[in-house]
Amino acid sequence: MPNGAQILIEGLVDAGVDMCFAHPGTSATHIVAALDDVPRMRPVLCLFEGVATGAADGYARIAGKPACTLLHLGPGLANGLANLDNARRVGTPVVNIVGDHAPRHQRLDASPESDLMSLARTVSGWTRRTYQATDLAGDVAEAVAAAYGPPGSVATLVVPADVSSSEADKSSGTVRVEVPGARPGTRPRPGAVSSAAVAAAAEVLRSGEPAVLLLGGAATHGPGLHAAARIAAATGARLLCESFPARLERGAGLPPVERLAHGTADASAQLAEIRYLLLAGTTTPVAFFTHPEQHGRPEPHGCEVRSLAEGTEDVTAALEELAGAFDPPSPFRQKPLRPERPTGELTAESAAAAIGALLPEGAIVVDESNTSGLWLPDATAGAPPHDWLPLTGGAIGQGLPAAVGAALAAPDRRVLALEADGSAMYSPQALWTMAREELDVTVVVFDNRAYSALSRELMSAGADPDGEWVADLLELSRPDLDFVGLARAMGVPAEQATTAEEFTAILGRALAEPGPYLVDCDVPPAG
Amino acid sequence: MPNGAQILIEGLVDAGVDMCFAHPGTSATHIVAALDDVPRMRPVLCLFEGVATGAADGYARIAGKPACTLLHLGPGLANGLANLDNARRVGTPVVNIVGDHAPRHQRLDASPESDLMSLARTVSGWTRRTYQATDLAGDVAEAVAAAYGPPGSVATLVVPADVSSSEADKSSGTVRVEVPGARPGTRPRPGAVSSAAVAAAAEVLRSGEPAVLLLGGAATHGPGLHAAARIAAATGARLLCESFPARLERGAGLPPVERLAHGTADASAQLAEIRYLLLAGTTTPVAFFTHPEQHGRPEPHGCEVRSLAEGTEDVTAALEELAGAFDPPSPFRQKPLRPERPTGELTAESAAAAIGALLPEGAIVVDESNTSGLWLPDATAGAPPHDWLPLTGGAIGQGLPAAVGAALAAPDRRVLALEADGSAMYSPQALWTMAREELDVTVVVFDNRAYSALSRELMSAGADPDGEWVADLLELSRPDLDFVGLARAMGVPAEQATTAEEFTAILGRALAEPGPYLVDCDVPPAG
Repeated sequence: MPNGAQILIEGLVDAGVDMCFAHPGTSATHIVAALDDVPRMRPVLCLFEGVATGAADGYARIAGKPACTLLHLGPGLANGLANLDNARRVGTPVVNIVGDHAPRHQRLDASPESDLMSLARTVSGWTRRTYQATDLAGDVAEAVAAAYGPPGSVATLVVPADVSSSEADKSSGTVRVEVPGARPGTRPRPGAVSSAAVAAAAEVLRSGEPAVLLLGGAATHGPGLHAAARIAAATGARLLCESFPARLERGAGLPPVERLAHGTADASAQLAEIRYLLLAGTTTPVAFFTHPEQHGRPEPHGCEVRSLAEGTEDVTAALEELAGAFDPPSPFRQKPLRPERPTGELTAESAAAAIGALLPEGAIVVDESNTSGLWLPDATAGAPPHDWLPLTGGAIGQGLPAAVGAALAAPDRRVLALEADGSAMYSPQALWTMAREELDVTVVVFDNRAYSALSRELMSAGADPDGEWVADLLELSRPDLDFVGLARAMGVPAEQATTAEEFTAILGRALAEPGPYLVDCDVPPAG
Repeated sequence: MPNGAQILIEGLVDAGVDMCFAHPGTSATHIVAALDDVPRMRPVLCLFEGVATGAADGYARIAGKPACTLLHLGPGLANGLANLDNARRVGTPVVNIVGDHAPRHQRLDASPESDLMSLARTVSGWTRRTYQATDLAGDVAEAVAAAYGPPGSVATLVVPADVSSSEADKSSGTVRVEVPGARPGTRPRPGAVSSAAVAAAAEVLRSGEPAVLLLGGAATHGPGLHAAARIAAATGARLLCESFPARLERGAGLPPVERLAHGTADASAQLAEIRYLLLAGTTTPVAFFTHPEQHGRPEPHGCEVRSLAEGTEDVTAALEELAGAFDPPSPFRQKPLRPERPTGELTAESAAAAIGALLPEGAIVVDESNTSGLWLPDATAGAPPHDWLPLTGGAIGQGLPAAVGAALAAPDRRVLALEADGSAMYSPQALWTMAREELDVTVVVFDNRAYSALSRELMSAGADPDGEWVADLLELSRPDLDFVGLARAMGVPAEQATTAEEFTAILGRALAEPGPYLVDCDVPPAG
């Protein structure tokens, strides 16, 4: 008879979840052992839980299906929460498996033991603790179905050690129902948008008033994106997408879509004068942060916000239906256009030009470049088609882990991870997994030796930039971080570039070679 | 008029909290600026929140008073939770300051925003959100008093951005009470243990039955420890301390106290045949983990567990009163005794001998050596007096951060951080803060390229050690981690030792030089 751990792993792979980002502990001993009994599951070892959860996020954003994690107790889950929060923000599906003490041990308040269920609920759309092995098959099916949604979500299944170690007849589960969506081919589709909603949107767009069609979710890639471009071309509506889409398809031959700025002032400028903000697969935009005296919403006074499709609805079909309501349009497609290879001083701007000049076709760009990324959208707009994966939820430390997951989801594509130096130091352990799994990830660290994002906010809040502690807390020098040394220490070859020519040459080599490579891009702090 | 941020910082330093481990974000802009207005607060920048919380833990365990942290929103708190859980386990006082969105922004469900209060409550004995700047002086006073206790605890104060930026007359707070314990000199003392409880304990010890006096909390250092030793000498009771005391004072001239093993089987062997387990400042021992079929408590069947003093009670006074109930005893003191400097193969055992041979007087040993630490207690027992700071709560990743905090609490003492390789990779960012603050921390990494603790559990659970994935998930090779490179990349000089002679020589130099140093101790995996 199988044990709970084997039922768990079998249930996951039967439901199509066959990639496991693991940072296991003693609560998961039987689950680790079961990985050898169910060889269809591919485990990937991570050195820190935030790497495991961020990798699961990056995997799902490219694979279009969830991976699972394997974490240990409350502290293990806590270490992975920030990246689960990023996943939650845009409905990225993740199946989160957390090992726990057996109840007999738990009642002794054994250490480390914390309020695991409360922690899980802060990020999960679905949370359950399994109490006996016979229930596991049903619980796993429900977890996977919940992760798929719609809407996609983090589904957390807590598996105590006694449950994974006990033998069980999995067909005798006390709750054993066919869970809709638990098997590939049975996933529920998102709900259809009513024709009335589509007609209302068409009316707005026909009004002649200035309008922005703001895309999110499934509308930022694939057929939904193409339909949106036809709508824009036919109606004059401007196409924007949410500041931090899960996956933005862009490049030569694709409809160009500008991202809404994440700062309220810049976003307000983009939306100035518009009369309608039509949401397609996204929610009303809100900045990550505003000073207390500022507004947190960027649309102008008097602008009406309308929604074509919510997160649980089929935004792709709605956009296609809406596009059909207009004359056959010929949408604007981005022309192939690359910047010249830059020369001279290495800055965030010239580095962006080099990236635009070299970005390979089909690349997946994982972007946590923060203030150093200002020039990237323009510089890469006409590069060959690629996917852009921004930091979705504002919790720093997503980039390097997400690059691990994206690379495992698409082994035939190149991943380019763009990291601010401060951000890279949240989860540098991801570099080791890149080396271990020989992933084709090229990492660029914008090494400006400062927390520039914070610095900007401080200055705009009126702080004295020359104050001793203000200056001290915003600089990443004293000592400088040596990202080349850091990468090599974890098995990733690396070089530093100090001129635009050097950066272009190193980046070109790094993008062409199999396996991971880190380029330290020595740039001045953002102004 | 001061703003909320200035009131906050002033309130903290007035209450004696003048060390701030900061990983600030945009929610804390005004708090960062206020650090220059209130120069009595010493901020220390950390690159990751787990470093900040672990440093606050290490600081308090040596300074005997709390530091504060400065964290950013729910994800920032989440990243610091594991080390706060470690602090919570043994009542280490920490004042946790978390910046948050202003309410007007928060109601827009701005990202990153999560259920901050629920997260905080999983580790905090006291949690509050401040709603207006006039309340801050009172809230800070209560937070500091709550952190002191008794019992000591994590006190979390959530400060929204509008509260820290608004000006306020701090004397006009709506809740403005003199908080007992908020000022140095006014801290409440732990409650007195009743004479009846002391008499009952004396009766147990006079019974002639085999007994263990199990020490924890304040009883593992200072006068309580000496009183306990007199009791043991007079009554024949055996002296043990909890597996993971916050601070164990030991070495030549001090009463030797064996730690209770953390594995149930080993701990059961230590307690075999005893009739009474008398708790002094600790709780009934429970292993971190047991297999479901094992007991989680180590005392033998028929053993009575009695408590002399609980965590809120004055265990030191109780032990002194109890000692007075017996004839003037001459307690056993540890004789000075160091191992020979080892030669030949470098193993966890020979490394322990080198550490015992070289440990400087007054050293603070931060111990997260896990399976590689087996030989350390014996090898260092007769070294000059020192403090031992184990991993208190079982959430890995405490060691390097705690070493940062301990070094700042005692700038005139040498800190020796003993790290397992897997553990070191949870919070390696602490090395950078050691370099930045020029801390006298010597780090030894037991580099055995394996998760040996997990491996042991797997084997005892009957897993096949040759299973492909079992082997893969337990080894830290492929690629090997280069801890020397990792340390140097963060500004800490480092060397690798491959023989016992080399290790002894490098460790000796490292302990003698000012500033941090990392020694990579290349040892075979634990058997």
